[in-house]
Parts: sequence; C-alpha cells; structure tokens
Amino acid sequence: MKLAARKLLTIISEAQIENEITGVIKKLGAHGFTSMEAWGEGARGRRSGEWEENRNVRVEVVCDSPTADKIAEYLVKNYCDNYAMILYSHTVEIIRTAKF
Amino acid sequence: MKLAARKLLTIISEAQIENEITGVIKKLGAHGFTSMEAWGEGARGRRSGEWEENRNVRVEVVCDSPTADKIAEYLVKNYCDNYAMILYSHTVEIIRTAKF
Amino acid sequence: MKLAARKLLTIISEAQIENEITGVIKKLGAHGFTSMEAWGEGARGRRSGEWEENRNVRVEVVCDSPTADKIAEYLVKNYCDNYAMILYSHTVEIIRTAKF
Repeated sequence: MKLAARKLLTIISEAQIENEITGVIKKLGAHGFTSMEAWGEGARGRRSGEWEENRNVRVEVVCDSPTADKIAEYLVKNYCDNYAMILYSHTVEIIRTAKF
Repeated sequence: MKLAARKLLTIISEAQIENEITGVIKKLGAHGFTSMEAWGEGARGRRSGEWEENRNVRVEVVCDSPTADKIAEYLVKNYCDNYAMILYSHTVEIIRTAKF
Repeated sequence: MKLAARKLLTIISEAQIENEITGVIKKLGAHGFTSMEAWGEGARGRRSGEWEENRNVRVEVVCDSPTADKIAEYLVKNYCDNYAMILYSHTVEIIRTAKF
C-alpha cells in the first residue's frame, strides 16, 4: 500500500454557509470534501456565561499542505468576521483517495 | 496566519449522557465543543462474540493540553465504570477559533 | 491516566456498503468502530467539472497499527475498484477504550 502524508483540514462553521465553504474548497484546488452535521457551543469573548448554541456543519478536506493553507486563509479572510468558524489541521497518512 | 498547537480531545459515549459530558467540558475550562451523532459497536471484554450496538454521541474539544487532561481524567473517573466511553487525543494546528 | 499510541483509521465510503465495511473491521480483529452519516463530493479523474455528490458513511476504527494496515489493505483490494472510498490514518493517544 502506498502511503503519502497529506493535510486533513477541518472546518466547523454555521450550516447556512456550507455551500459557500464547499465552493471555496472546490475553487481552490482540492479534489473532494466530506461534510457532517454537527452542533456545539462556544464562548464568545471572555465572559464565561456567554455560551451560544449553534447548528453547525463539519467539513473535512484531505489535500496537500499549500492547498490547505490557501483554503484556510481564504475562509478566515472572508468569513470569520461574520460567522462562527473554527479551523484546524493535522497530518494524515492517506491510503486511498481514488474515485471520490 | 498564526498557528498554534492544541489538543483535539475526542470523546465517544452514550447519547444519553451528552449533557453531562458537555457540562464537564464547560466547567473544566474549555472554550467550546462540537458534537455529532454517531453509532457503533464494541466488544465487551475478551469474548469475540459479544458485540453490542450503541446510539452514541461523538464530542470534540480543541483546548490546551492541561485542560484536555483534566477533562479526560474527570470523565474516566466519573463515567467509565457505568457507561461505554472511548477517549483519544492528538495534536492539531489550530488556525482560527474566534467567535465560537 | 495511562496513554498508549494507537492508529485511528478513517474510512469514508458509500453508505450502501456500511455493513460490509464494518464486517471486515470485526473479522480482522478490531475491538470496535464508530460510524457517522456524511456526505460529500469528489472529482472523478482529472476533469475539474466532474464532481459527483454522494451519501456517505464515515467509519472510525481505533486499533493497533498492524490491524489498521490489514483492514485498509483488505478494503482497498476488495472495494476500491467498485465503490468510492477514501482511507486515511494517523496516530492518536488512546486514553480509554473500556466497555465499548
């Protein structure tokens, strides 16, 4: 089995902008994505009492590191001021991506 | 883009105790969490025939390493004797957490 | 808390073969799995216009590295020619697996 290191970029945001997020992913050169329904809470600012519940979508993209950076930068720049969004990434060993 | 290493703690357990799990996460200092519906099977003990199906919740917390340890220790101590629960963690590069 | 390094193998494929995937996981020696509903798109081949939408299942298995390899090899050999499937893995610190 051939293995190769790739980035797994995870984006968790408001469900209403799912199509915009996946549009960015496609436009910036990734070969696919996986979405899941999610919900959660987060503290706005520093006041511990201010938790807010959200209907979220969790989108995963497996791609090379420069593509992950481009997608993350674009999303941070264009959506993070107006929408709840968390982005994180880590390295995975990709075993097979064909036919997705 | 500023990147910082954080822990991603994943807790998979019975859906009925979701509120207790997320209550612990909030109480012990995390700034947010993401939940997803999940299902699965697991072998109880060593007898291979004993698989049991569960309605589960999969909760993710991105936080610093000491907070992840505190949450994991509390959950193991207080819930693992009575509920099915798996916990694992790994390091992620956090890109953006604001407004969650 | 005792920690041990394990592999987290993630398999994303067509929902219709979920039972076959989880059957392989059980047969090849894993102690459990977690499934989630997912959807996504992927480019078939090199033509950027050919995106196809899928109803998927995302299956996670935490196990030792040789077991993860065996499961991945079996699935690639037997399913990847006929079904959309992506497989990737990374190392996690397992905190607790009991009673799943």
